[in-house]
Amino acid sequence: MSSDDPISSTATPPADPAALGPHQARALFRAGLQVPTSGYAAGYAQANLIALPRELAFDFLLFAQRNPKPCPVLDVIEPGRTGSALFDGDVRTDLPAYRIYVNGEQVDEVGDARGAWRDDLVAFLIGCSFTFETPLLEAGVPVRHIEAGSNVAMYRTDRPCRGAGRISGPLVVSMRPIPADRVADAVRITSRYPAVHGAPVHVGDPAALGITDLDRPDFGDPVEIRPGEIPVFWACGVTPQAAVMASAPEFAIGHAPGHMAITDVRDSAYQVP
Amino acid sequence: MSSDDPISSTATPPADPAALGPHQARALFRAGLQVPTSGYAAGYAQANLIALPRELAFDFLLFAQRNPKPCPVLDVIEPGRTGSALFDGDVRTDLPAYRIYVNGEQVDEVGDARGAWRDDLVAFLIGCSFTFETPLLEAGVPVRHIEAGSNVAMYRTDRPCRGAGRISGPLVVSMRPIPADRVADAVRITSRYPAVHGAPVHVGDPAALGITDLDRPDFGDPVEIRPGEIPVFWACGVTPQAAVMASAPEFAIGHAPGHMAITDVRDSAYQVP
Repeated sequence: MSSDDPISSTATPPADPAALGPHQARALFRAGLQVPTSGYAAGYAQANLIALPRELAFDFLLFAQRNPKPCPVLDVIEPGRTGSALFDGDVRTDLPAYRIYVNGEQVDEVGDARGAWRDDLVAFLIGCSFTFETPLLEAGVPVRHIEAGSNVAMYRTDRPCRGAGRISGPLVVSMRPIPADRVADAVRITSRYPAVHGAPVHVGDPAALGITDLDRPDFGDPVEIRPGEIPVFWACGVTPQAAVMASAPEFAIGHAPGHMAITDVRDSAYQVP
Repeated sequence: MSSDDPISSTATPPADPAALGPHQARALFRAGLQVPTSGYAAGYAQANLIALPRELAFDFLLFAQRNPKPCPVLDVIEPGRTGSALFDGDVRTDLPAYRIYVNGEQVDEVGDARGAWRDDLVAFLIGCSFTFETPLLEAGVPVRHIEAGSNVAMYRTDRPCRGAGRISGPLVVSMRPIPADRVADAVRITSRYPAVHGAPVHVGDPAALGITDLDRPDFGDPVEIRPGEIPVFWACGVTPQAAVMASAPEFAIGHAPGHMAITDVRDSAYQVP
């Protein structure tokens, strides 16, 4: 948590994070709680954040247009603004944690990004697969990292995204172990949410994505894969941060992976028939 | 046609435009044929064009992201390039006709845009509703302007798009008269093509869109509405040109309305389940 946040010490994890409304969840994060948001505010969409200087904004928006599976743009906050159409709050304070990048290197992780924010930043909110976890749970498809109270496992792949101007980088994926007899259901359910990564990009065989060890994710926490479960991979909104690390823009701010913006938009708003 | 095109006089309309392949259609347009492209190269997607100076490209791409119904971006051609991922050709020559805008005013209409093109232009190819006309015809839904051999009727509405930076303007719609008992089919069929405007934005009652006289379209040709037919309105990729007229960027090039880029991409590539 931000060391200069006077009320951070009062923030403790809630007993039932799923039951929180999005306003309540964001109030806890503003108060200093730094936790992964999977399982929080069930039924509300969550979003990734990447903020870049205005002079890189076209390159990044084009990168997102060319890579809609990992980078579905839900909202864009223009320079000098800090409010989003997606939630009633401040994008600099209402996420649990932020990462600050200088020349592509992470230089800090903070609970409050106001001290690092710049007036020339354009902030992009990108769809997050946590959004379709409520529909998965409602269908009886288990979500292991919620059961375990841990962060989702995320991996850099060896698949390059399509570059745009000065922005390029690899596809990042999130992984959920799914019982083999529920993989089809997981595909069917998540494919109805294309704005939050939609259907999996890959089912089984991590080596085919260049992932050598599932127990060592590049972001988040490892999860147990039980007998009879298949690792299923979805495109991930950390992809923009992998592109920042690969492309080394002079400055960027992202969310800490798994520590998302919880929006006031219902999951169902992003569902297609 | 371009007055300086030495072979333009040899180009005559084909006997069966639907049977042309996209390469053949574009060759006719390069040779000087200037016709609306509805009904050409059946089964291939068509696209609108708007090219703007690089310094406006972020504002326009954000405008498109905020108005995905009229402005679904299919491809972006970066400065200094003239080829598209969507077709094997040159975006400056392969459309039947272009409009040149200076400070938001149309100053010319040409068959060949090479003389006006600038190295700082970013060209956006935007989905076109002509793409779903083949599926409509295959389902027995009549498309009047193809029957009549005329251009589609397009109208400025009184609905503002969401603005982005220096770009704003009204929604433009195309109109097709549909027999009342086929309106549901037309909605169902076109809703499966969200990347080329998808479902109608409005069915019946042009006054509700601020359209006072269907016989006087703002772009294209009027069409007969027969007894028992309902005017059905789809979002239109001329919306970016209406935004150019409203926002007055110093320079822009668009297609002449109805005179589209015919791509090498099958309609079905843009179909969702």
